Amino acid sequence: MAGNSFGKLFNLTTYGESHGPALGGVIDGCPSGIKLDLDEIQNELNRRKPGQSAIVTQRKEPDTVKFHSGIFEGVTTGTSIGFVIENTNQKSHDYSHIKDSYRPSHADYTYDKKYGVRDYRGGGRSSARETACRVVAGAIAKQMLKGIEIKAYVSGVGTMKLDTPYNDIDLTQVESNIVRCPDQDMAAKMETYIKEVRAKGDTVGGIVSCIIKNVPVGLGEPVFDKLHAQLGKAMLSINAVKGFEYGSGFHGSTMYGSDHNDAFNNDGTTKTNYSGGVQGGISNGMDIYFNVAFKPVATLIQKYETIDKAGNTVEMQGKGRHDPCVVPRAVPIVEAMAALVLADFYLINKLYNYQV
Amino acid sequence: MAGNSFGKLFNLTTYGESHGPALGGVIDGCPSGIKLDLDEIQNELNRRKPGQSAIVTQRKEPDTVKFHSGIFEGVTTGTSIGFVIENTNQKSHDYSHIKDSYRPSHADYTYDKKYGVRDYRGGGRSSARETACRVVAGAIAKQMLKGIEIKAYVSGVGTMKLDTPYNDIDLTQVESNIVRCPDQDMAAKMETYIKEVRAKGDTVGGIVSCIIKNVPVGLGEPVFDKLHAQLGKAMLSINAVKGFEYGSGFHGSTMYGSDHNDAFNNDGTTKTNYSGGVQGGISNGMDIYFNVAFKPVATLIQKYETIDKAGNTVEMQGKGRHDPCVVPRAVPIVEAMAALVLADFYLINKLYNYQV
Amino acid sequence: MAGNSFGKLFNLTTYGESHGPALGGVIDGCPSGIKLDLDEIQNELNRRKPGQSAIVTQRKEPDTVKFHSGIFEGVTTGTSIGFVIENTNQKSHDYSHIKDSYRPSHADYTYDKKYGVRDYRGGGRSSARETACRVVAGAIAKQMLKGIEIKAYVSGVGTMKLDTPYNDIDLTQVESNIVRCPDQDMAAKMETYIKEVRAKGDTVGGIVSCIIKNVPVGLGEPVFDKLHAQLGKAMLSINAVKGFEYGSGFHGSTMYGSDHNDAFNNDGTTKTNYSGGVQGGISNGMDIYFNVAFKPVATLIQKYETIDKAGNTVEMQGKGRHDPCVVPRAVPIVEAMAALVLADFYLINKLYNYQV
Amino acid sequence: MAGNSFGKLFNLTTYGESHGPALGGVIDGCPSGIKLDLDEIQNELNRRKPGQSAIVTQRKEPDTVKFHSGIFEGVTTGTSIGFVIENTNQKSHDYSHIKDSYRPSHADYTYDKKYGVRDYRGGGRSSARETACRVVAGAIAKQMLKGIEIKAYVSGVGTMKLDTPYNDIDLTQVESNIVRCPDQDMAAKMETYIKEVRAKGDTVGGIVSCIIKNVPVGLGEPVFDKLHAQLGKAMLSINAVKGFEYGSGFHGSTMYGSDHNDAFNNDGTTKTNYSGGVQGGISNGMDIYFNVAFKPVATLIQKYETIDKAGNTVEMQGKGRHDPCVVPRAVPIVEAMAALVLADFYLINKLYNYQV
Repeated sequence: MAGNSFGKLFNLTTYGESHGPALGGVIDGCPSGIKLDLDEIQNELNRRKPGQSAIVTQRKEPDTVKFHSGIFEGVTTGTSIGFVIENTNQKSHDYSHIKDSYRPSHADYTYDKKYGVRDYRGGGRSSARETACRVVAGAIAKQMLKGIEIKAYVSGVGTMKLDTPYNDIDLTQVESNIVRCPDQDMAAKMETYIKEVRAKGDTVGGIVSCIIKNVPVGLGEPVFDKLHAQLGKAMLSINAVKGFEYGSGFHGSTMYGSDHNDAFNNDGTTKTNYSGGVQGGISNGMDIYFNVAFKPVATLIQKYETIDKAGNTVEMQGKGRHDPCVVPRAVPIVEAMAALVLADFYLINKLYNYQV
Repeated sequence: MAGNSFGKLFNLTTYGESHGPALGGVIDGCPSGIKLDLDEIQNELNRRKPGQSAIVTQRKEPDTVKFHSGIFEGVTTGTSIGFVIENTNQKSHDYSHIKDSYRPSHADYTYDKKYGVRDYRGGGRSSARETACRVVAGAIAKQMLKGIEIKAYVSGVGTMKLDTPYNDIDLTQVESNIVRCPDQDMAAKMETYIKEVRAKGDTVGGIVSCIIKNVPVGLGEPVFDKLHAQLGKAMLSINAVKGFEYGSGFHGSTMYGSDHNDAFNNDGTTKTNYSGGVQGGISNGMDIYFNVAFKPVATLIQKYETIDKAGNTVEMQGKGRHDPCVVPRAVPIVEAMAALVLADFYLINKLYNYQV
Repeated sequence: MAGNSFGKLFNLTTYGESHGPALGGVIDGCPSGIKLDLDEIQNELNRRKPGQSAIVTQRKEPDTVKFHSGIFEGVTTGTSIGFVIENTNQKSHDYSHIKDSYRPSHADYTYDKKYGVRDYRGGGRSSARETACRVVAGAIAKQMLKGIEIKAYVSGVGTMKLDTPYNDIDLTQVESNIVRCPDQDMAAKMETYIKEVRAKGDTVGGIVSCIIKNVPVGLGEPVFDKLHAQLGKAMLSINAVKGFEYGSGFHGSTMYGSDHNDAFNNDGTTKTNYSGGVQGGISNGMDIYFNVAFKPVATLIQKYETIDKAGNTVEMQGKGRHDPCVVPRAVPIVEAMAALVLADFYLINKLYNYQV
Repeated sequence: MAGNSFGKLFNLTTYGESHGPALGGVIDGCPSGIKLDLDEIQNELNRRKPGQSAIVTQRKEPDTVKFHSGIFEGVTTGTSIGFVIENTNQKSHDYSHIKDSYRPSHADYTYDKKYGVRDYRGGGRSSARETACRVVAGAIAKQMLKGIEIKAYVSGVGTMKLDTPYNDIDLTQVESNIVRCPDQDMAAKMETYIKEVRAKGDTVGGIVSCIIKNVPVGLGEPVFDKLHAQLGKAMLSINAVKGFEYGSGFHGSTMYGSDHNDAFNNDGTTKTNYSGGVQGGISNGMDIYFNVAFKPVATLIQKYETIDKAGNTVEMQGKGRHDPCVVPRAVPIVEAMAALVLADFYLINKLYNYQV
């Protein structure tokens, strides 16, 4: 109810502040009998962790996940899976400058007004650090969904856009550069650009795209819990996301029905895929693809004016180790959230055709 | 679980097929003591109903809502509100052509594969006819949220776009034309265009924008249930929606942080509003605004080839009374869903600052 | 959230006041492909309806259920099932005596304090009339659970108790008398007793017992959602229920472990069944059996003193057509709630052993 | 869905096996601004912990709770509260005897059949060790509910019963003896009796009663989520519970309405309280009281025959450190579950009278 849970059958509940002793979570509803590759889960965390490359925040956090329950001799038991990621790098900073002031386009103001109190250290609960827990759960969901391929990549940094149609993307190239853009030339340009932006103490937005292959027909529930609606919610819940579109997306709104309709092949696949793999909220077996827009990070390494709790103007100076552009690190988070959505619908779908 | 419910505290559960005896729903969690204007609820339904103008489907349905419970002497009692909308215009068509065939970009194929059976008459449960129930519940939510202004309008039809910044829109003009575009010149062009599209038996997509004013600070829950994430899900759950963006949206992904950050005024309002009224998933009191992209309607009044259940190619001929462009009728649906999201968060927010 | 929904996967949401135009509900999550016997559903309603025998309220209500959706050509489609039961016997009584007064041991006082308003006619939402909707949904759940036998019966009226051990009860005899007690001699005595109580304008409590046979192993979820915990909640949610015990029940609290433990047979069944078919919250395949205690109906056909809203003492006179003892009509309600619990766990259980 | 969560608004999700590295949980929905007494939380855990007295299991576990989030400078922040209790006494026993065998009246058989795998060490997830997490959350709920007094006590051990009416119980005496029976003479007899039972390697059942004072009017939701129904579920979800009754309970089923009705005083209180503080599922401000029946512990320190996975008869010998009677340690668990139920309804109730 208070927003810290995601999913109905494959349910993740998380906790943790940026500078508290630990983050953690509980996965309830993971089926029994899944042999987990724990290294692979840690690998996913490593793709998200700070300090991994020259274009992300240089903060050092090992982000090591420890499992407390629900796994016995490497296999899920069907009971709830508890896990913890300790915060090892909570420097005892002086936070007095941030304690009573509201940074622009952060959650300082809204948390304070909503709750009356807040853990202001490093953004507290509003920090994107909480997404580490999503990656852990998403990695388990991926293993449950063996056979379904969920791959995200960077398709935009600032005004630089990768225009390649989704079905021409070479997904094997995503991890071959630190931007996580599958086109090496574009990746090189984006990398240079991000470094320039950082040198100015500025930040820039970007776009993460995602393609999901081998989805069985039938995932998603009609009316309110359409597959793409839940995917949209999942993506919009990631810090800094401003927009979501799937299939033909915003461009589709400019098209004629006679161009947009996806004619069937005789095997039930479609000749085009403007639908983005979803019809009537339910997967049709074609590739699912979507775009997620991220705003520029709000923390600038610049001097600026803002207000304090009393409404007085105060001068602040951004400092520390921050991401100039979040999209490279957002790639595994987008994948994790997609995996959570699919895992949930996968389980729900096992129920509702009674004969099966 | 099976997708027919929306909202946690202000919860709507709906039922009904396009050509069954009736649609209906139950609202659970509406507080007691709200004096309802029942005519206003019917008015909202009338804004959505077929046959209301020259550019929408000419099917005739009175869409009269009857309340069965939860309202006593015009006031909500706190018990569940049951309501019914009878289907009066279910002609005993011959549906044999649709019974065993899958129309392209409809839900025929996915429903059949998911459930094994389906009510094929008029699309059954997948028909946008179910949104009538959303409008009823949204109209009650609006009355609960007295003071908060939720106004949607058509900002795009095909490639025609209204580029006016959100804060320059004259919301009093929305209902002054049948397109529901607040710019009269643009509305006239759009109307002409829609008629041309229909004359060809074709359809076209469009965009509905929405502005919400006077939102109290504090609505929305952190992490997974961010205000904009739930708004996104709500909009994406409407039939034919392909994308959602709020505040700076997709354009925001191209911006620098130094341009995108919303500097504070001393009263806590912000000088710009790229955030779209939401920071950290929680309303900050500024206007909320967002765009919703609709694909073109899949039903064309044209001849086309498709497949039947057995995978054979069959020829079909679209006929009947259909919308050439859904956005004029989608305006009240977008408002209703926004109202449901706000109502839910409004109630949740009453809880979580203990001192209040 | 506001209490009008039951079940997670097989979910029922109901509405309706005693004297409003209709009661109704929505079943969300019923699987597709179930061929429903609609007459059998009506039969279950008839077992609950007023006026069915000489020892129940003589109010006349046909309690005819109409289905609005979710069933197509007699088969469930997997979409939500909406249904309505019209109230045909809402006489335009003069309710002024009840409007401003609080009847003892009714919900008048608590509803008024909680909600500020209430539909006082016939008890409004607090009337046991709402259980008709439970019976409809339970009847559908029973048909989904084909093979599992759920049978309730009256085992106590006032101090008269049927002491037969559960496995010696002849369940075929339950419907052979109007008390619904499977022992004909005891039934005759109970009938006479109930008539005597009614003649005095008084009421008396009783006990309904229930036996469930052929339950598959594995229903129920550990920790908070144990099978018997959910059964207990289901039963305690029925109007007038004061207690629930299963298996050895309260008597089991007086026993030694060495007597109470159920030793295994080699096939996994147990020699005794003090466990009541549930171990660790999960069904073990043995018969489930439990007792439900009902208090005496609060409405007496007698003169009594009570208070009005202002706290003044007022004199009231119970009148009308009321049940002298609820247990005969409670039998199908107990069965219905048990069916809803089992249906929910039946669906949940299909998920959580991944190999299956 | 899989049973590891309790509560809607004040929600607890737990994890942990008896012999895993740790137990833990997340509380989501605890309001902000509550100054927590952390020592008091640990005190509640100490009341439950093993080894606390001569009549409970002599296993040693410090059961120290560590909080990871949601509390800042001693005050709740409104974000999710994560906590962990490390298992320090997981001896590397030889569990081969238990690994492939099913102990009678334990959950070994049902877990194995349901999940296909299980952590057999010490009962795994089915161990009552998980209730430690309930006590942590309940202790926080108690602090949120300041002013409401929730007190449980032992009223029965085997056939020994404390018959004192609930309103004559001296609750200040509960903690003055190790049985937690408020009558000192009875407590002494019970203590002697429990020691005798243990000396024989046997166990015995018992009853915990609970009284809740100063409950505001209005807690509980009508129809399915009645206050006593949720209390019943909460109690029945505790390991070894076989029955629940509130107010007049099972005895009430033998009474006449003319005796059972609770006549009003002019201030809205009632002269008698057979209703047990709840009418129509909603608290009426009178004391709530109820009884919870516990079966005898299944683990005997005796030799017995049972079966293994293959269905072969095997001989086993109970050993180790076990409780001869659970009720003394169950007292804080009953209180904790009652607190969780009340906390949830307390929050829900803040919503549904709109004027307030």
